[in-house]
Amino acid sequence: MNVVEKKPADRLQDNLAQVQRLIERHRLVEGLVHRQDMPRHDLVESIVHKQNLAELQHKLDALHPADIAYILEALPPEDRLLVWDLVKAERDGEILLEVSDAVRETLIESMDQQELVAAAEQLDADELADLAPDLPRQVVYEVMGSLDAEEREQLQSALSYRDDQVGALMDFELVKIRADVSCEVVLRYLRRFDELPEPTDKVFVIDEAGVLKGVLPLRKLLVSDPEALVEDVMATEVVAFHPDEDAEDAALAFERYDLVTAPVVDADGRLIGRLTVDEMVDVIREESESDMLNMAGLKEEEDLFAPVLDSVKNRWAWLAVNLVTAFVASRVIGAFEGSIERIVALAALMPIVAGIGGNSGNQTTTMIVRALAMGQMQASQALRLWRKELGVGLINGLVWGSALGVLAWALYGSLPLGVVMTTAMTLNLMLAATIGVFIPMTMARLGRDPAVGSSVMITACTDSGGFFIFLGLATLFLM
Amino acid sequence: MNVVEKKPADRLQDNLAQVQRLIERHRLVEGLVHRQDMPRHDLVESIVHKQNLAELQHKLDALHPADIAYILEALPPEDRLLVWDLVKAERDGEILLEVSDAVRETLIESMDQQELVAAAEQLDADELADLAPDLPRQVVYEVMGSLDAEEREQLQSALSYRDDQVGALMDFELVKIRADVSCEVVLRYLRRFDELPEPTDKVFVIDEAGVLKGVLPLRKLLVSDPEALVEDVMATEVVAFHPDEDAEDAALAFERYDLVTAPVVDADGRLIGRLTVDEMVDVIREESESDMLNMAGLKEEEDLFAPVLDSVKNRWAWLAVNLVTAFVASRVIGAFEGSIERIVALAALMPIVAGIGGNSGNQTTTMIVRALAMGQMQASQALRLWRKELGVGLINGLVWGSALGVLAWALYGSLPLGVVMTTAMTLNLMLAATIGVFIPMTMARLGRDPAVGSSVMITACTDSGGFFIFLGLATLFLM
Repeated sequence: MNVVEKKPADRLQDNLAQVQRLIERHRLVEGLVHRQDMPRHDLVESIVHKQNLAELQHKLDALHPADIAYILEALPPEDRLLVWDLVKAERDGEILLEVSDAVRETLIESMDQQELVAAAEQLDADELADLAPDLPRQVVYEVMGSLDAEEREQLQSALSYRDDQVGALMDFELVKIRADVSCEVVLRYLRRFDELPEPTDKVFVIDEAGVLKGVLPLRKLLVSDPEALVEDVMATEVVAFHPDEDAEDAALAFERYDLVTAPVVDADGRLIGRLTVDEMVDVIREESESDMLNMAGLKEEEDLFAPVLDSVKNRWAWLAVNLVTAFVASRVIGAFEGSIERIVALAALMPIVAGIGGNSGNQTTTMIVRALAMGQMQASQALRLWRKELGVGLINGLVWGSALGVLAWALYGSLPLGVVMTTAMTLNLMLAATIGVFIPMTMARLGRDPAVGSSVMITACTDSGGFFIFLGLATLFLM
Repeated sequence: MNVVEKKPADRLQDNLAQVQRLIERHRLVEGLVHRQDMPRHDLVESIVHKQNLAELQHKLDALHPADIAYILEALPPEDRLLVWDLVKAERDGEILLEVSDAVRETLIESMDQQELVAAAEQLDADELADLAPDLPRQVVYEVMGSLDAEEREQLQSALSYRDDQVGALMDFELVKIRADVSCEVVLRYLRRFDELPEPTDKVFVIDEAGVLKGVLPLRKLLVSDPEALVEDVMATEVVAFHPDEDAEDAALAFERYDLVTAPVVDADGRLIGRLTVDEMVDVIREESESDMLNMAGLKEEEDLFAPVLDSVKNRWAWLAVNLVTAFVASRVIGAFEGSIERIVALAALMPIVAGIGGNSGNQTTTMIVRALAMGQMQASQALRLWRKELGVGLINGLVWGSALGVLAWALYGSLPLGVVMTTAMTLNLMLAATIGVFIPMTMARLGRDPAVGSSVMITACTDSGGFFIFLGLATLFLM
């Protein structure tokens, strides 16, 4: 056998393309069967029919669960369910863990209770805990009944934490050793395992009460003198987590200290689980995605091929907020209709003032949301940052505002109009800087996610504010 | 000694707070020295002065390089340089690797050539390659001269790839073994190392020509019979990368297959380096951040405390684009000034149509940018997706558009105005759906990053388009 040569990304696309080709062929045959109901063709077509599906199933069996998950996500609903039916039942559980929440829902909906129980029974307690919120209650109870006491306790423990807490993400595959044995003994002990949990970069050193004393990295164990005692080789400066800790903080620590696994301890320092880098990578990915989705006013990850009405629901909330803010902005304009009637040019120029303000405010907020997410910012720095952003707004306002002021003057032949334009731009950019700093900071201080809706709120302020400033100045100085 | 008990996130904040307190105290003393020039106080103050700095230095010496990097990023420039001067010279290199690009620049600017050479000489070839683009040319040459032939070759190899290629991210710390030896021999061989590279979850199996034959995970090695041959224990289905491969694809593969390290092979299958999960985590983080920054029209990561002018430059480009598009939208309105003069309500209502379109288009694009980044979408699906988004736009347009139409009718007492409002909203949301699908798809097909500027372009289309549709309909049917 030879080492795989294809680039993983290409291999993934190839797999998907092959599956799509097989599905297409299958649909074609199906279509033929439907249209021509000549009985003597039945046999032939049903053979071809079966051949295609058998080939597809064969293909799927050879794939890594993560690759099947990828294919399921990339397929439209009807093809997705066709593939899902062909996947071997004993792989259902691990694949359900890999797919996105939105796709997982559609898959679970397509399964009956018996299938779900069979799938869930394949999983470890911590994996089951990940899946449990999406499963029907009845299924969870049934599976719980089949667990042993230790597993049931682990499952209950995992379920008792929120999704964004370390306790919900830890697993229980712990290799524990004592400090007062030699490395030789540890090596012999490890050899007794059928396999070590994946990934294993260290084993955990505990005392008789189960309290974490240190960790022994395999890369140290392997180069140590077999006679050396664990306590002399182990690392005692350990980054350990508590189950109630924030998962995002844990992910940042993994990133910062380049961890592969890390122990989780309870309030008394007893080892109760471990975190692994693969879970933390998922946290990082999800967090940055949800920031991006939230800033755009999407409630959550959306199945690309979700039914139209599901998509409408996902986007409804923020569109409604946006509608209200747009209406408010519109009323601000309405208050100045008299001025617009006299100088209609105002109507053409006002969206520029509002638009640039929104863009600039969003730039500021994006930077701050990012800094807050990385833990690089504290509330005490808000003032300093505000001063800086005001400076940026002032310069941009004067430079671009003057350019537009000159344009307005040239277009409409009114110098005062140009001056109003420049002034309004500058003031609105400074308003944008202020709002752009304080909205996310305030959200963070209130313990809310600063990414959620920041963008909509900023645009609301810079729109209404921009119209008010520009039309107000015009009314004062040009009427 | 006891295991660390503090939560990592709290510990980080504590460290930062302590450093800030020491800096503050130091500045206070400095201020006193400046103001009161009483000579007899000199001595006392200079002692206090030195004490503060000594304490700060002591504190810094005890910190992990990543923690120092965190502190440097969170401090304003003058404090940052004070701390940087106190960091031990031999740690400069590793800390420079940890800080963000923007902060790295400010630190390198503050160092003279000799300091930079000393810092760079501490690093491995692959680390040096990361730093080289930011270093003065003269420094790179000098350091290159001090490398041995193998290291120089590695450095040159690493420098020959673009930042976003696997070749630029791989390291050269390879533990290689042969397939025809026993596990016992491997264990003895490993014991001869002073230490194994971090992280090590597997060793690489090669033949006499250096061609990768498989990998031996430590978790397998440790549970295997010592007599067993490597070739019987090793994994031969290996996810291997090529140096010219895209780093983001590699990161997705790490995420998908839960890898900790993976081999990099050349075109002939020879093992030339390895990728590690910590580098891949950085890729994931950077990629999702640059998507977020790009969608907001920020050129790159910005030092929070950068001088105002640097920030202005970073945001200049997209603001300018935005200004042009806003001006175009303004001219569209200008073309309908006659209509606005007759029905001034149009001026108040038109920003609603444009604004909702922009918001909705950005929701669509964000979803697609995300799906493209995850490799979940192909060009062939554009049509299908477009139909779906059109459906979403149509429903939202009819529902919200009708609500606003009724409002407009109630406010201005004109049923035809309400109908125009509803129709314009619906059409603009369908335009937004179209643009929102095709702009990122086209960018991706042209091989460009779909996140860059998508948002600005969509807003441009929905603004100009929204004004044109609304004012055009009004002119046709209401005049």
